[in-house]
Amino acid sequence: MDIKTIIAKKRDRKELTEEEIKLFVGKYQKGEISEAQAGALLSYIYKDGMTENEIIAFALAMANSGQKINLDDISQNIVDKHSTGGVGDKVTLILMPVIAALGIPIAKVSSRGMGITGGTIDKFESIPGYNTEISMETFKENIKEYGVGILNQSENLNPAESKIYKLRNEIACTDCVPIIAASLMSIKLLTGSQKIVFEITYGNGTYIKTKDQAKRLARILKMVGKKLNKGIMSVITNVDEPLGYSIGHNLEMIEAIQSLKGKMPEDLGDVVVTIGSVILALATKSKNLKANEDTVKEVIRNGKAYEKFLQMIAAQGGNTSYIENPDLFEKAEFVMPVYSSEEGYIEKIDADIVGSIAGYLGAGRMNEEDKIDRTAGIVLNKKIGDDVKSGEIVAYIHTNDESKVMGATKNLAEAFKIVKRKIYPTSRVVEII
Amino acid sequence: MDIKTIIAKKRDRKELTEEEIKLFVGKYQKGEISEAQAGALLSYIYKDGMTENEIIAFALAMANSGQKINLDDISQNIVDKHSTGGVGDKVTLILMPVIAALGIPIAKVSSRGMGITGGTIDKFESIPGYNTEISMETFKENIKEYGVGILNQSENLNPAESKIYKLRNEIACTDCVPIIAASLMSIKLLTGSQKIVFEITYGNGTYIKTKDQAKRLARILKMVGKKLNKGIMSVITNVDEPLGYSIGHNLEMIEAIQSLKGKMPEDLGDVVVTIGSVILALATKSKNLKANEDTVKEVIRNGKAYEKFLQMIAAQGGNTSYIENPDLFEKAEFVMPVYSSEEGYIEKIDADIVGSIAGYLGAGRMNEEDKIDRTAGIVLNKKIGDDVKSGEIVAYIHTNDESKVMGATKNLAEAFKIVKRKIYPTSRVVEII
Repeated sequence: MDIKTIIAKKRDRKELTEEEIKLFVGKYQKGEISEAQAGALLSYIYKDGMTENEIIAFALAMANSGQKINLDDISQNIVDKHSTGGVGDKVTLILMPVIAALGIPIAKVSSRGMGITGGTIDKFESIPGYNTEISMETFKENIKEYGVGILNQSENLNPAESKIYKLRNEIACTDCVPIIAASLMSIKLLTGSQKIVFEITYGNGTYIKTKDQAKRLARILKMVGKKLNKGIMSVITNVDEPLGYSIGHNLEMIEAIQSLKGKMPEDLGDVVVTIGSVILALATKSKNLKANEDTVKEVIRNGKAYEKFLQMIAAQGGNTSYIENPDLFEKAEFVMPVYSSEEGYIEKIDADIVGSIAGYLGAGRMNEEDKIDRTAGIVLNKKIGDDVKSGEIVAYIHTNDESKVMGATKNLAEAFKIVKRKIYPTSRVVEII
Repeated sequence: MDIKTIIAKKRDRKELTEEEIKLFVGKYQKGEISEAQAGALLSYIYKDGMTENEIIAFALAMANSGQKINLDDISQNIVDKHSTGGVGDKVTLILMPVIAALGIPIAKVSSRGMGITGGTIDKFESIPGYNTEISMETFKENIKEYGVGILNQSENLNPAESKIYKLRNEIACTDCVPIIAASLMSIKLLTGSQKIVFEITYGNGTYIKTKDQAKRLARILKMVGKKLNKGIMSVITNVDEPLGYSIGHNLEMIEAIQSLKGKMPEDLGDVVVTIGSVILALATKSKNLKANEDTVKEVIRNGKAYEKFLQMIAAQGGNTSYIENPDLFEKAEFVMPVYSSEEGYIEKIDADIVGSIAGYLGAGRMNEEDKIDRTAGIVLNKKIGDDVKSGEIVAYIHTNDESKVMGATKNLAEAFKIVKRKIYPTSRVVEII
């Protein structure tokens, strides 16, 4: 069994065995399979997909490539929530304390961001003192003590997935649904959670471009979950427009904090409440989604989620005075308005353009080594459906690089499509699978 | 225009522009495109093929990647003959002096062998003193003086093709017809020959496995030739069985010399005479293939081809006493017979097995750095259609490694399929396109 035979087999549309997939993942991780060979195999997978068994074998091989985390001694009922990421998506930041405040333990392995969507780990690090590089022991203690823990997917955890993730980015293979499924499952297999809710984003502002791809991914995850005896549900959301108003690390953290204090943007609130209610349905006996939504709203309204957030930030060394008073967050030197030159209703805010400009301003990581400017980003002043007058401010850019102001404001204005007829925004939540 | 966009475009079955292909070839050669990216792009090409325009752009980009050779000042009527290679294929060794002896200048850029099929350059080097690393000037002088020249495809010539060839070998992409077409054309574009005859081999003993692939390749080459204003014909030959009796460097050279002296195995003779007659049809006014065949036979029979061979070997420093007396060639230490355990007629001699065993005995290069044992190889004693008694010798193995004798003789016996009914061998020449 050598890699060339495996490549040719996949190329010729034959199903790979568990052994063959294990060999590929293991040898690639060790550098015993060349980049060209891995690139070729992934490309053939892109073309012809993977069977359910192949996806499971792929996920298991990656999950077993490094250390694993056994949480069985803490609880058998730990849930995990995972987003495929999107421009402005800070749902995880808000939902973790919400779920924990409802008494459901939540454990999450997260990673840093790449491309136009920021990573959860990066966003948490916006809080001064907050330490994402905690030990496995601290992670487990936090779950036991506060019902919530978050761990950075480091070198030791899932190293094969990390290496393959970088490769996919290099060869235009980020939107390959079966590989995404295997990748997501491998991360979720690390902690052994029995109940997992995926937020599957699609649209301009993420790497899954179509609703069909998102639905296919959700169905695959459900099937794979069944085979692995895990409860899996997915909430499909659209990110053609950025989620909420803020894009950028400090800016998104501030918006998350304000949300937990009761000032949640409507579209973001819809997603948070829907996913929260699905988690409740999966983890408790309350199967009524409508009633669950009220439960989620109440735990935010009564401040318990906010209290939990303070606890979980403090537990990882974060300075909670920033949460109590978000004005303390460092601001970018240049905060410049972007004006509308037209009058009418906002029909579209292209999340891909917004995300790319935020990255250009310093908020994104195009290469692994790139440093992030935590203060950089964009704050929208208008959302889809809002009316706008000519000369009115539609957004602000935040940057420390004066030379980027001109280009960014001009390009950002073009992300907005303004029409004469009234526009009614549609819900961001598209389907629950 | 970046490589990821190009990969995604090909993946999504869109035709690449000349500019995009040039960018890929140029940047890959310079190391500005990663191995993974090149592996992905070639894999998508394998899956979906290339259009005529893409093949031409690919061939031109590779041919222009290094030095070129202008032979216009010597003759406008130089022909080129190229074989895709096969186990036991020594046709080029024989045809070069034949064609030159007929007064048609022939110029050839050749390469070393990889895998089970030996390279023409390697085979010429079997003659002591013969220098394949001649300068461009000597190459041109030889064509002017003797009507025949052969040049090693070195680092300076077609470097992009060399690099892509290695990559293809790594990722199970050697039998991709459109890439083979681009590759062959790029080599042929180096010398600017206007008339090219391809010997397209298919079967067990080469990397093109089916007649359909061979015919497709021939048709593509013809179309591409038309677009580039070149006369191109292909002779399709089958190498399910090795061609001639000898496999291995010294052994094949000896068989080529004996052939030029009038003792040519029948199947080899068929191929030599057919291709020779096609070259005559392409390069002269004699379009009658039957008559041309007689012309080719005559130039061998009357010794003029042999005289030309002595000249061309001497011109590159080769010791011609080895040609006059092939017994001078060094022999392997162990020459061991392989016996038949059955009685009947030989129906099949698996060229893939024979080639692999020859390689195992030292005659093949599995990696670029591998040293070849020039004395190693196999000499068949029977061919398809021959009758054989139990205990009769069907072949000899030649090796300097005693430890390989047992395994090789056992496995080689299995390459022969012997049946009770009489077998009539079919012609090796399958079609002229």
